[in-house]
Amino acid sequence: MTDDGKYPWPHRHLLTLADYSADDIRHVLTTARGFEGISTRSVKKAPALRGRVVANLFFEDSTRTSMSFQLAAQRLSADVLSFSGKGSSVSKGETLVDTARNIEAMGVDVMVVRHHHSGAAAKLAANVQCSVVNAGDGRHAHPTQGLLDIYTVAKRCGRLDSLDFTGLTVAIVGDIANSRVARSDLIGLKKLGAHVILVGPPTLLPRGFADLGDGMSAELSHDLDAVLPRVDVVNMLRVQFERMGGGKSGGPAFPSTREYTARYGLTAARLKRARPGVVVMHPGPMNRGLEIDAAVADGPNSAILEQVSHGLAVRMAVLFLVTTAAQGT
Amino acid sequence: MTDDGKYPWPHRHLLTLADYSADDIRHVLTTARGFEGISTRSVKKAPALRGRVVANLFFEDSTRTSMSFQLAAQRLSADVLSFSGKGSSVSKGETLVDTARNIEAMGVDVMVVRHHHSGAAAKLAANVQCSVVNAGDGRHAHPTQGLLDIYTVAKRCGRLDSLDFTGLTVAIVGDIANSRVARSDLIGLKKLGAHVILVGPPTLLPRGFADLGDGMSAELSHDLDAVLPRVDVVNMLRVQFERMGGGKSGGPAFPSTREYTARYGLTAARLKRARPGVVVMHPGPMNRGLEIDAAVADGPNSAILEQVSHGLAVRMAVLFLVTTAAQGT
Amino acid sequence: MTDDGKYPWPHRHLLTLADYSADDIRHVLTTARGFEGISTRSVKKAPALRGRVVANLFFEDSTRTSMSFQLAAQRLSADVLSFSGKGSSVSKGETLVDTARNIEAMGVDVMVVRHHHSGAAAKLAANVQCSVVNAGDGRHAHPTQGLLDIYTVAKRCGRLDSLDFTGLTVAIVGDIANSRVARSDLIGLKKLGAHVILVGPPTLLPRGFADLGDGMSAELSHDLDAVLPRVDVVNMLRVQFERMGGGKSGGPAFPSTREYTARYGLTAARLKRARPGVVVMHPGPMNRGLEIDAAVADGPNSAILEQVSHGLAVRMAVLFLVTTAAQGT
Repeated sequence: MTDDGKYPWPHRHLLTLADYSADDIRHVLTTARGFEGISTRSVKKAPALRGRVVANLFFEDSTRTSMSFQLAAQRLSADVLSFSGKGSSVSKGETLVDTARNIEAMGVDVMVVRHHHSGAAAKLAANVQCSVVNAGDGRHAHPTQGLLDIYTVAKRCGRLDSLDFTGLTVAIVGDIANSRVARSDLIGLKKLGAHVILVGPPTLLPRGFADLGDGMSAELSHDLDAVLPRVDVVNMLRVQFERMGGGKSGGPAFPSTREYTARYGLTAARLKRARPGVVVMHPGPMNRGLEIDAAVADGPNSAILEQVSHGLAVRMAVLFLVTTAAQGT
Repeated sequence: MTDDGKYPWPHRHLLTLADYSADDIRHVLTTARGFEGISTRSVKKAPALRGRVVANLFFEDSTRTSMSFQLAAQRLSADVLSFSGKGSSVSKGETLVDTARNIEAMGVDVMVVRHHHSGAAAKLAANVQCSVVNAGDGRHAHPTQGLLDIYTVAKRCGRLDSLDFTGLTVAIVGDIANSRVARSDLIGLKKLGAHVILVGPPTLLPRGFADLGDGMSAELSHDLDAVLPRVDVVNMLRVQFERMGGGKSGGPAFPSTREYTARYGLTAARLKRARPGVVVMHPGPMNRGLEIDAAVADGPNSAILEQVSHGLAVRMAVLFLVTTAAQGT
Repeated sequence: MTDDGKYPWPHRHLLTLADYSADDIRHVLTTARGFEGISTRSVKKAPALRGRVVANLFFEDSTRTSMSFQLAAQRLSADVLSFSGKGSSVSKGETLVDTARNIEAMGVDVMVVRHHHSGAAAKLAANVQCSVVNAGDGRHAHPTQGLLDIYTVAKRCGRLDSLDFTGLTVAIVGDIANSRVARSDLIGLKKLGAHVILVGPPTLLPRGFADLGDGMSAELSHDLDAVLPRVDVVNMLRVQFERMGGGKSGGPAFPSTREYTARYGLTAARLKRARPGVVVMHPGPMNRGLEIDAAVADGPNSAILEQVSHGLAVRMAVLFLVTTAAQGT
């Protein structure tokens, strides 16, 4: 659809944005831009992947991500096979790699995998011939979320043509330590040149996070109020209830949701500290009234539903590019 | 396929038949009639909704209704996304409206929704831009079941050309109080001019039900034997075991299934009280031997499997019409 | 695609290979051979069943078989409806036959059914007009597994042109008594002329199994080491943990998994007793280290992943043939 055939796309897989160069990321975003219009047409269909098969292997529950990948594949005319970990052969004691090899043997072009173990996607990629796209592995990476967040920043901040984020400041707020979204956002944003501030309570913001290697680093802060006036974008992470009350040392990560909201919740009052045009993002699903107020989520600064729309375009681009690369190999 | 472009179809949603005029209902049935033949061809496919996306959001378990909508959408060449409430973001605390807005943001044309809360479909329709089709909301409405029942009455009683039910008498028998099917049937049948008798034990047949407003009313009866000789059609509702043993006041709605069958079950013996050509209907799934005997369910008066076939045609018509309306807006 | 229109294909259903003649089986395999190449193309799609509807009714959990049927149907351009027994109308007390008749009434061409009751597929076939394909019923039959195993034997042993297994010896090893795979393999292999040896502990290898009727019989053995040097193919059945520890008399079928592996596991050491080119098969999912060693499963003798690929081709052939037969009737 949009591949100009000039950029030498090298990747058969998408496991983590750490594997992609800044130009690779830009090529995904440019490809996504070409696909974006399809989703607003009445005939939401392009023939790019007709006769290709995308297998969605979700070993963790997911609504929006699995739907988004399924729609992205259908929109490119691929056949989609959806697989949920429950009641599967994996529960009969089969290994993950055996399951994947079996599915591959049925004639599958791309495996999209979500798994609770960090490194699961990489393990599959090492053991199958088809393409593997990581849809979230443990606390490690969620690269398509990273890409859609970056696409949203680019579009809202007027950087869609340049795809150069120099001079932009993005805050990521919340449970940084446990968030694969934070990791993928951070890596991608830094590669495009943004300044990134990670904001959260000390228990959820380990110091080691500031150093990404490759000369990349992030600023750390425990004070959202102090950070807000400086940022172009603020990305509010979801509070994961299941992890509340237990930090690394066994003690609570923070005392209560009320306390969390008081210090790190993006309320309408707190948003006034930010610049008027600040872009508010959230990967969803939202806990309204906890990490974000309804008035902010539904207000003019919010790009939250745009993130979802961009997710479609970005996933179409990724499926298209990795399939093309696999074909060329 | 069958839309002649002349009837000014006004509805972007189907929430309840109360919103539809008699002529609107007739237009759905006429459209369904044009689609009916597709399901008996070897190539069961029309291009009407190619590239459109239908999202099936079923927060309550369902087999036949969700399958019927899925097949209806596929038969019109739409892409279908199926979503079951379990293991979804809703269970992570996200609101129903947020879930729906997210799915809409992925580029969806129609949301088909089943939900245990009365009013859920209307709530979604008020909060999304795409079309919403109610596939059953609490005790409130199940309008496509109403339409397929009406289609079956029309076909079996020779009213498919006129779509005028004047002079026809239809009995609906069973747990009227808790039945969204009874409500939707009643409203639709009355709009086309039928006389409707609601039959059931006093505990399951509240008096308020007789008055539908708009000058519409139904006859009430606790005596199936007395009613049977007068009817052209008898629609036997499913006994919902989960509601047995607890009426409004906390006491049992009726003493036992044996007692229920004795008074309200459509046995072969009881059917002899009816006219020879009486049409027997049931929305399914049937409790054979409880509200209906196997000999009746499988006998020549039964239109039960035709109801299922008509459900496909009616749902194709509804998906087609609401999508066309949404496009025009 | 590959039907030459000359072989008078007589079967509207596939319930058990016992119903098929040797020539019928050969015609399925020849048809499958024609379809096999589609799965390795980049456009994995043939139009043979466009507009047909295949309903997958899986009342038992399954990953690979349900996926394989779904992909097979999609690859022939059919629409697919997938149904899992859980949360279905069957759990609301509806009979299996009523569920099937309802689904048929929606306009379905083929029902693929897996069920824990032996005879379930035959029962459906007796009660619906559409085609029925048995995807495993209790301990009775799993005919498409039988066909894909036979296809794999033919291909690996150079009998794909002749489809005559005279002179070939195949061992099936493990829990013969409870295995529908063993039954279907045995019947099909014998029909094509192979010599079959059933190998397992006495508790899992009832003597009655040796006589299939119709003059067909199998050799029985409790000594895998003695059998291995004589076979061209060894098919290792999965140990079903859920059945361990309880034989027919209530006592354990075998004392421990360690004991089982010692006597019946296909270890690398034991494989050396077989001929160099022996073909190793397993229906999956594998218990690595129990009935088969990883080194054997992944070694050059293993045809295990080819079995999976052949499953696609065989199921495409079956869906195509039964649909064509149904059309002609």
